[in-house]
Formats: sequence, C-alpha cells, structure tokens
Amino acid sequence: MLRFDLLKTEGHARRGRLTLNHGIVETPIFMPVGTYGTVKGVMPRSLEEMGAQIILGNTFHLWLRPGLEVLQTFGGLHRFEAWDKPILTDSGGFQVWSLGEMRKISEEGVKFASPVNGDKLFLTPEVSMQIQTVLNSDIVMQFDECTPYESKGKLTSEAEARASMELSLRWAARCKTEFQKLQNPNALFGIVQGGMFESLREESLAKLVEMDLPGYAVGGVSVGEPKNEMLRIMAHTPHRLPANKPRYLMGVGTPEDLVEGVAQGVDMFDCVMPTRNARNGHLFTRFGDLRIRNARYKSDERPIDESCSCYSCAGHAGHAGGFSRAYLHHLDRCGEMLGGMLTSIHNLHYYLNLMREMREALDEGRFETFRKQFHADRARGV
Amino acid sequence: MLRFDLLKTEGHARRGRLTLNHGIVETPIFMPVGTYGTVKGVMPRSLEEMGAQIILGNTFHLWLRPGLEVLQTFGGLHRFEAWDKPILTDSGGFQVWSLGEMRKISEEGVKFASPVNGDKLFLTPEVSMQIQTVLNSDIVMQFDECTPYESKGKLTSEAEARASMELSLRWAARCKTEFQKLQNPNALFGIVQGGMFESLREESLAKLVEMDLPGYAVGGVSVGEPKNEMLRIMAHTPHRLPANKPRYLMGVGTPEDLVEGVAQGVDMFDCVMPTRNARNGHLFTRFGDLRIRNARYKSDERPIDESCSCYSCAGHAGHAGGFSRAYLHHLDRCGEMLGGMLTSIHNLHYYLNLMREMREALDEGRFETFRKQFHADRARGV
Ligand SMILES: [Zn+2]
Ligand SMILES: [Zn+2]
Repeated sequence: MLRFDLLKTEGHARRGRLTLNHGIVETPIFMPVGTYGTVKGVMPRSLEEMGAQIILGNTFHLWLRPGLEVLQTFGGLHRFEAWDKPILTDSGGFQVWSLGEMRKISEEGVKFASPVNGDKLFLTPEVSMQIQTVLNSDIVMQFDECTPYESKGKLTSEAEARASMELSLRWAARCKTEFQKLQNPNALFGIVQGGMFESLREESLAKLVEMDLPGYAVGGVSVGEPKNEMLRIMAHTPHRLPANKPRYLMGVGTPEDLVEGVAQGVDMFDCVMPTRNARNGHLFTRFGDLRIRNARYKSDERPIDESCSCYSCAGHAGHAGGFSRAYLHHLDRCGEMLGGMLTSIHNLHYYLNLMREMREALDEGRFETFRKQFHADRARGV
Repeated sequence: MLRFDLLKTEGHARRGRLTLNHGIVETPIFMPVGTYGTVKGVMPRSLEEMGAQIILGNTFHLWLRPGLEVLQTFGGLHRFEAWDKPILTDSGGFQVWSLGEMRKISEEGVKFASPVNGDKLFLTPEVSMQIQTVLNSDIVMQFDECTPYESKGKLTSEAEARASMELSLRWAARCKTEFQKLQNPNALFGIVQGGMFESLREESLAKLVEMDLPGYAVGGVSVGEPKNEMLRIMAHTPHRLPANKPRYLMGVGTPEDLVEGVAQGVDMFDCVMPTRNARNGHLFTRFGDLRIRNARYKSDERPIDESCSCYSCAGHAGHAGGFSRAYLHHLDRCGEMLGGMLTSIHNLHYYLNLMREMREALDEGRFETFRKQFHADRARGV
C-alpha cells in the first residue's frame, strides 16, 4: 500500500505524509543508504535515534549477497537487518549499468558476470520485481536503464537518450505487469529518464503518469554531469510530476542540493554522501563543511557542530558532553573504527535534521526564510 | 586514591570493591582494552550499557598519538575519550619490549625509534610516570621489563629471569619515587615478574610488598608460554599477594582463564581477546565458541547466544529482537563495519557478564557450584 497526503505547499515546496506498509514517513525526507542491508558503520538503534524514517537497500547487492534463499528465510529484508520501519529498494538498474564493460544490455534485460564469484547473471524487469518482492521493501523501484551523461568522453546525443528513455518505459510496463502478477502488496515507483533533454523528460513523465503508478522518481542525475546540468533538470522535472503523488530525486546530493530540491518540489532524497564522506573525514555542519584530517583540529576541544544534538556532538543522556574534534582527528589518524562510526552518525544526523527543519519551516509557512538563512549559515564557515 | 574492601572469600576466590578517583569498581572484574583511547569499534555508551566499570589505555600508544600536548589540553584521558569512569593505564613496558630488535634496554630505560614517525625516543620509569600523570589514569602501572618466555627459540634461563626481575624491582622503586614527586593523586601498582620460576616470583613479590604499594599485578604471563605454564604461575602467585590489596593478572585471557584466575584469587583481568576475536568472527558464548564465518550459519535465524542480553543478541528496548547469526555471517562476508561492531559488543558483554555472574556467585557463597556449571555449559557446544 501507499497513501500520500499533501499537507501544505509553499511555491513548489511541499510538506507531505507517506503511509507505507511498515509505517509513516513525513516528507520531505532523506533516506540513508544501506546497500548490503546495513547503513555503513551505523547501528539500527542509532538510525532510529537520529529520526531515520525510511532507509534504502540495494537489490543488486542483496541478490548477490546474502542471496534470495537467505532473505526468503527471513521473510524479507526487514527482519534480516533488524529494521522495522519502511524500506525502499532500488531496482539494480543503476548498479548493472555501473559495471561498464562487464555487462551487456538488450531489450530483454542486462547480462553480466557477478563481481562476487563470476557467475553469469541476467537481470530483467521481471527478475528485479521478483527479487524486490522477496525483499518485501515498502517501495519498489522499476527496473530502468540509467542514461549516461557521457560515454568515452562523448556526450550522450538526443537520439541515444531517447532510445534509452523509451527502453526504460517499456521496462516500466513489464515491471508493472510482473509486480501485479506477483501480488506484491507494496508500492511500485516509475522512474523518469531522458538524460539532459527537457523534452525527453516531459515525454517520459507523461507516459509514466499514464501508467498511474503510486509514486515517481527522477533518475539519471548524479551520473557524472556538471552541477549546473543537474540543477537544470532538478528545476525542470520534479514539479511537473503529479501533485498528489510522492516525488523522489535519486542519488542527490549535498545539503545545498537537498534544500534546492525541496524548493523544486522534491519529497524524497537518497545519497551515499553523508556516510561515505564521514568515513573520509568530510563532515557537514550548519556553518559549512569541516575536514577533520586538517591539523588545525589536533587540539580543538569543540564538537563537530555546537548546534548539533547527535551522539557524536552532544553525547547521550546522563553523560557529560560529546566528542571533540581533537578526538575525532586522533581516531581518524589512528584508523580507529570509532572515528567512522561517530562521523557517520553526525553526518546522517545532520542530513535528517536538515530535512526536519525544512518540514517545520513548511509547516509554519516560512520555507523561503529558512532557505535564505540556511545558505547564509552554510557560508559562515566553521 | 585507592581503597579496597574485601567483601567475601571462597577458597582463594574473592569478592571485593575498589574505590578510585573516578568511581567504584566491583571485583572480580574484566577491563576492556582501549589502546588508542578507544575500545576498538565500541562506543562509550555501549561500554556503559554492558556494565564496563573500568577500561584500559596504553601509555606507549597514547604518548605517540595524540601525544602529551593534546592530552594535557584535555586534562587527561577521561575527557579526551569521553569516559568518566575509572581508567587503568599500563606503563609502556610491554609495548617497548614487543618492539623486539627495534629497542635497546639499559639500566636507565628503553631507547627505541617511534614506529609512527621514526623519532628516537627514550622511555624510562620516570618518563612513564610523567606520561601516566598527564593521562590522569586512576591506576598507574610501574614501568617494568617483561621477561620473555623464550628468545630466538631458547627458553629464558633462571639467571636471565633473575636479572630481568631485579631490574624491574629497581625500576619499581624509581617509579614510586617519581610518582610521589609528581604528587600523582591516583594509585601506583607494582608488577611481580620472575618468569616461569616460582622462587623468583616469590622474591619479586616479597620485595614489592615491602614497598607497600596500593595494588599488585602479576606480569610476564601471556607472553608466548604454553597454557600449562601460564596456569602454573596463575596457581602460584596471585593468592600469595597481600589479601587486603587488589590483584591484577595482566593480559589474561580466555573465559576459562578468567574463571580459573578468580578461583586462584585474581581480582582484575584485561585482554584484547574479546574485541580482536570479535573482529575475526570468533565469538564467545555460554555454550562454547562460535566461528561466524562458518557456512553453517548462512541461514541461522538465532542470535549468537540465546541466553545473552547484549544489543547484538537481544536488540534494545522497544525494538523486536536482536541480530541473527545469518546477518552477522553476511556482514562479515561483505566486510561491513557493523559486523565487527556487533560482535565486539557481544564478546565484551559476554566477558563482563561472566564476571558479573562470578561476583553474584561469590556474594551467595556458591562460586564452586558456578565454576562447575560454567565448565559444563561451555563444553555443551553451540
Ligand atoms: Zn553532530
Ligand atoms: Zn550477545
């Protein structure tokens, strides 16, 4: 099931509520990525504490490891990874596309060799639906072909982008048929493609809307294009999607992207950036980014962000204070696991809290004010 | 300060209470090892939840990174690592000894090149006391020479063990003098050496007792000797130490070693085994050890240990269940951080809970019954 209540709007920006089989998701929302059934370095309880409402899983990875037999035993991904709130799974399309030379795309689907053990595998719209049905994710993504921004240094032409977009549309129809045949009780999202061409985007969107799916995503961004190209598509497509259905911008992005995406009418985001950057010592704060490896933090007694209430910055109830920049700098330098654990908690908390602040601003009709303050704060510097 | 109350005895086994500057420690106790100011892969809040009362820090490592200047800024190790309960620090003696050919031992101390940046360093009894005073650990260990079990395949002779033991005694006296000069408000422990020779152990012990230190450790075990040699020393030395002072067996050991150690009158233990083994997939349970990498656990829905109440096995309040063996097997196979995080929590919880059960058995005068049941349970198999 999926129910979407649009609670409030301000310009294109929207405040909504998504009801799914495993619970309610207040939008706009950021979804932490848990590729292999774990948000890297973060315990499920920490995700709950920081207010994560829905997390991602990757169909491609989970298909390879632990494999469907194990996931079947657990009745899906929720019990396997001990997460009882909603889960969204991607279709595997982006991952097989990322294999580059190692895969072969045809009308039927994508043939590739397993990067884990070399097994020859064939991922099709039907197989993707079958896997996601075993995963029992609350939101199932259609199998699509991700249109590249460029191939071997050559920009994707309009003809190429059209062919790719049309293939994705045919796959969408096959996904819908298989999804219904499997009697999957969850919700299937379509994915708008069309590369960097607005007209193709509009055509893709129109055809998908005709299919009357419960939600829509904008795909094919964050695929190596320049920032201004991504912003152009982000300004073009989301607000054209049906107002009464949730809108998901895939694989985006920086804190600035999230705020601009909400301003453009996006309800849902996902990105590996907060966790990946955390492990590399790149931390997000209200007042700009901070590179914890910088020697200037060697003796810095302050937490990452004094305005942050995460476990890393503020500690936990009944305990004095959090962890200093000096300590995190030291942990990083020594390659200690706790470093990545604490910075991942902070970065995800920052993202989730940013979304929370946007929801509050929308509730109170002051999103534009918030947006200006956000940019001013981020420019201040830590 | 250090106050030790001996609450109850059963045979050589003792139930006691240690009062230190940062709090009270119920004994017998296991102390998780936090070499670089972090118990590897475990958040301080998790340590508190599993009932850790005192943790270790390594003087040698902390001296190199982050260095004394940073630790001075934080007024010691407690605030730096956000741990406000007691801390014990070793002297650095074992670590410089472990450098092998890279160090040179003289009457004055140990010269060595920093493994971090090659700097020439000189660690002496006085320097060790100065560092540990900056760390402000509740229990300070004397600087000693760890007598090897063998060198280049040749067993240490009695004459060699005597020379080494006597050097450690002279260093103990220098430590005491420096510790007093520094007006260190914490407690200095002496370390009994003497290799595998009972007569030397007795001589070392007698001389250290004359120095009237607030606590004593048995060192020079877990240095590569066969298990029966370790057990021989564990049966010989601890119960000969003053009854009114805490007794610490350094670097030991397996769950079986802990139970036998308590039976021999030991109050305190430390070992990297629970965390190191956890990261290698070697898990301790009430009913024997479990290697999570074994393919038999691929689909096993049970937690590591059904009788365990740790976060990994039982989840946390308000959340259904814990994590399955199948999930931990999967995380290990994918090299996911969460695997080592959850298994480290479990193994440490197992160790701390084992000590808790021993304290309860001693409180109730049924330690011998407990000991028999422990061995029977551990032999059962998972
Ligand atoms: Zn924070
Ligand atoms: Zn457990």
